[in-house]
Amino acid sequence: MDQSDIKKYRIKFEDELFNHVLPFWETHSPDPDYGGYFNCLDCDGTVYDTRKHVWLQGRQVWMFSKLYNTVEPRESWLTMAKSGMEFLEQNAVRKENRRVYFCLNRKGDPIWMQRKIFSECFYVMALSEYGRAVDDQSYIKRAREHFNTIWSWKDDLSKVGRPSYSGQKKMNALAVPMILLNVIEEIAGDDWSAWQVKIDECIRQMLLHVHSDRKLVFENVSPDGEFLNTIEGRLLNPGHAIEAGWFLQHWAQKLNDQSLSNTATLMVRWSLDRGWDDEHGGIFYFLDSEGYSPTELEWNLKLWWPHTEALYGSLLNHYITKSEDDLEDFERVFDYTFSHYPDHDHGGWFGYLDRYGHVSQRFKGGPYKGFFHVPRSLLFCRNLLMTMDKQDSTTGQS
Amino acid sequence: MDQSDIKKYRIKFEDELFNHVLPFWETHSPDPDYGGYFNCLDCDGTVYDTRKHVWLQGRQVWMFSKLYNTVEPRESWLTMAKSGMEFLEQNAVRKENRRVYFCLNRKGDPIWMQRKIFSECFYVMALSEYGRAVDDQSYIKRAREHFNTIWSWKDDLSKVGRPSYSGQKKMNALAVPMILLNVIEEIAGDDWSAWQVKIDECIRQMLLHVHSDRKLVFENVSPDGEFLNTIEGRLLNPGHAIEAGWFLQHWAQKLNDQSLSNTATLMVRWSLDRGWDDEHGGIFYFLDSEGYSPTELEWNLKLWWPHTEALYGSLLNHYITKSEDDLEDFERVFDYTFSHYPDHDHGGWFGYLDRYGHVSQRFKGGPYKGFFHVPRSLLFCRNLLMTMDKQDSTTGQS
Repeated sequence: MDQSDIKKYRIKFEDELFNHVLPFWETHSPDPDYGGYFNCLDCDGTVYDTRKHVWLQGRQVWMFSKLYNTVEPRESWLTMAKSGMEFLEQNAVRKENRRVYFCLNRKGDPIWMQRKIFSECFYVMALSEYGRAVDDQSYIKRAREHFNTIWSWKDDLSKVGRPSYSGQKKMNALAVPMILLNVIEEIAGDDWSAWQVKIDECIRQMLLHVHSDRKLVFENVSPDGEFLNTIEGRLLNPGHAIEAGWFLQHWAQKLNDQSLSNTATLMVRWSLDRGWDDEHGGIFYFLDSEGYSPTELEWNLKLWWPHTEALYGSLLNHYITKSEDDLEDFERVFDYTFSHYPDHDHGGWFGYLDRYGHVSQRFKGGPYKGFFHVPRSLLFCRNLLMTMDKQDSTTGQS
Repeated sequence: MDQSDIKKYRIKFEDELFNHVLPFWETHSPDPDYGGYFNCLDCDGTVYDTRKHVWLQGRQVWMFSKLYNTVEPRESWLTMAKSGMEFLEQNAVRKENRRVYFCLNRKGDPIWMQRKIFSECFYVMALSEYGRAVDDQSYIKRAREHFNTIWSWKDDLSKVGRPSYSGQKKMNALAVPMILLNVIEEIAGDDWSAWQVKIDECIRQMLLHVHSDRKLVFENVSPDGEFLNTIEGRLLNPGHAIEAGWFLQHWAQKLNDQSLSNTATLMVRWSLDRGWDDEHGGIFYFLDSEGYSPTELEWNLKLWWPHTEALYGSLLNHYITKSEDDLEDFERVFDYTFSHYPDHDHGGWFGYLDRYGHVSQRFKGGPYKGFFHVPRSLLFCRNLLMTMDKQDSTTGQS
C-alpha cells in the first residue's frame, strides 16, 4: 500500500467512524432517565424496544472508554462510558455468584440469564477500559478478580447452569478460549507476565481448532482437537475464525512468536477464502465443512461483523506480511463492506443482509448488534494505517 | 369447487403423499440397528447426523399410526410406528418426573432437554395414536396421564426448569394452548366430555391472541390478552396463527359453535393475508405488527410448514364457508407450495426457501423438520376432498 492509499483509506475510516457511526449512537442510544443505552434502535434511531442487552451495554462502555483513552480525552465520551458503567454496576451482576445477566429491562431489572460466560466477559472488558479512562485501579482490580472467576468456570459450564447429559459428545467451542484471550489482552495491559499460563492455555485451545491439512478452522472440536462428523463438528463460522486470527496475531506480536504469527495469518486467509460467496460477494455466516446445508436458518446471511473483522484481519495481515494477496483480500472486503453496510441517510451501519446483499433487517441496533464491531474495526484499522503511514515516512518505503 | 376440481386436487395430494413423500421417509429414515428414525436426512436421503430429535420421533410415530388407522392397515406402516414407539418408550422419558428429552443420540442416550413442554406433547400424541393402531388401551391411558402432568406445568414453566426474573413482563404464548388443544383432540377421541373444562380453557386462552379490531393474531400477549409493545409482543407468526385457526375449527365443528367457527375462519384468512409476501409470493415466517424488522434473522424465509398448514386451513375454510375467497386462498397457496417444495428427483419436500423462493437449506429432514407437517396436510386435505366429493355426489351440488 503506498502512502496515498494509506491516506485514502485512513480518511474513509475516520469519516465513517466520526461523522456517521459515532453521531448515530451518541444521539439515539443514551437513556437519560435510567442510564445505560438503548440498544434496540431502528434504522432512523427510533427505540423499538427499551430493554438493554448486557453484551452490548458492556461493549459500548468499553468502546467509548477506548475512544477516550486512545483518540482524545473528549469529555462527552467519558460521560457516555460512565452512564453505561454505572448502570451495569448497579444492575448487571447477580451479587451472590458474580453471574452477569444477559438482558435487563429499561430500569435494570433482570429479564434473562444465559448459561454461557459471555456477558461476564463483556462486563470485565467494560470495567477494565473504563478504569483506565477514569484512572482508577480499583476497576481494573475488580475486572481481574471477575475474570479469574470466569476462568474457574470455563472448563465446566455446569457452573453457569448448563446441564450435561450422557449422550453428549465432549466438544470444545472456539468462542470460549478466543474471547478469554481477548479479555486478557484488555485486562493485562503492558505487563502480561502474571497471565502467561492463561495466555498459553487459551492459545493452545484455540490452535486445536485449526486443521492445517484441510485449511479449515472448525468452530467445535473434540477436547483433543479431533474433527467431529456431526452438525456442530462440521460447523464453520468464518467471521469467528477471522476474529480469532487477529486476536492471536496481537499475541504473536507481543510474544514475538513467528510461528504463531504465521498460523494467525493463515487463519484469516483460509477463512476468508472459504467463507467468501463467489457468486454474490460477502462472507457467509455459517458453512458446513462437508458441504451439507448448515442447520442454522440464517447461514447464508451476510452479517456486518464478519466483514468488520475481516477488514481489520486482512489489513493486519498485510501490515505484517506485506503480501499483495493480503492487500487484495483487504480491498475486496473493503469494497463489499463500504458499499453495503453504511447508511449515510441516518447514520450507523446496517447489520444484516440477505445472501444477495439486500438489507434483510433494517435496524441499526438489536439484541446482538450494538456500538462495538463497527467502531472497533474502524478505529483499529485507522490506528494501523497511522502506524503504517509513520513507518513509511520513516523508512521511505512506498 | 366442482367435482372435477375436487378429483384433480385429491389425485395430486394422493400422488404426492403416497408416491413421493412416504417412500422417501420409508426408505431413508428407519434405523435398523437401534430403532427409531434418522431425522437428519440430506436431499437424497443421506444421514448427515445420527442424532434423533424427539419432537420428530414422536410425530413420525403419530403419522404412521394415523396412516395405519385411517387410510388402510398396512403392516409396514405399523412396523414403522412400532420401531419409533419402542425407541421413545425406552429412551425419551426421564422417569423420575415425566420430562421428555428434546434430543437423543443414535443409541438413545440423552443429549438435550428443553425448558418447554413440546417434547412431552409429541410423545403423548405418539402414545395415543399408536395405542389405537395396536388396539391397546394401556397406551391411551398412559397418554392421558402424561397429558395431565403436562397440564399441571403449563401455567408455570418453572416446573420444567424455566427461570423467571423480576424484569420479565408476564406474557402468554399462543403455542402453549394451541398444542394442548390439539393434543386433547388426539387423546380424547369421540367422547370429550371429561375434557370439556380443559378444552374451554385452551380455547379461552387462544382467543386472547386474536385482536379482531386489528385483524391480527399475536403470538404473545399479556395474561389478559393485552397487546405488548415489545419485540415479542409485536411478533406475528402467520403459520402458527393459521394452524391455530384450523385446530379451533375442528373444535368449533365438534362443539357446534358457530361463533368459534367464524373466528377460526377469520384467523386463517387474516393471517394468510398479512403473512403473504405480495412481492415474491409465499408466507413469511415472522413479521412485526408495527412494521419494524423482526429480530429473528430467518423472518423472511418461506418455510414449508406455514404453507402446509395454510393448504389445509384454507381448504377447510372453503369446505365450511363455501366462499370463493377461501377457494382462491387455497389455490394461491396450492400453486406456491406445489411449485416450490416437492422434489420429485429424490422424493420428500424441501423445507426452507429464501424470500425469493430459492432452496436455502437442501435437507429434507433436520432438527425441526421430519415426517409430519407435509404428510399430515396431504392426508387431511385428501380426506377432506373425499368428504366434499361424497357430499357433492349426495346433494348434487357442483
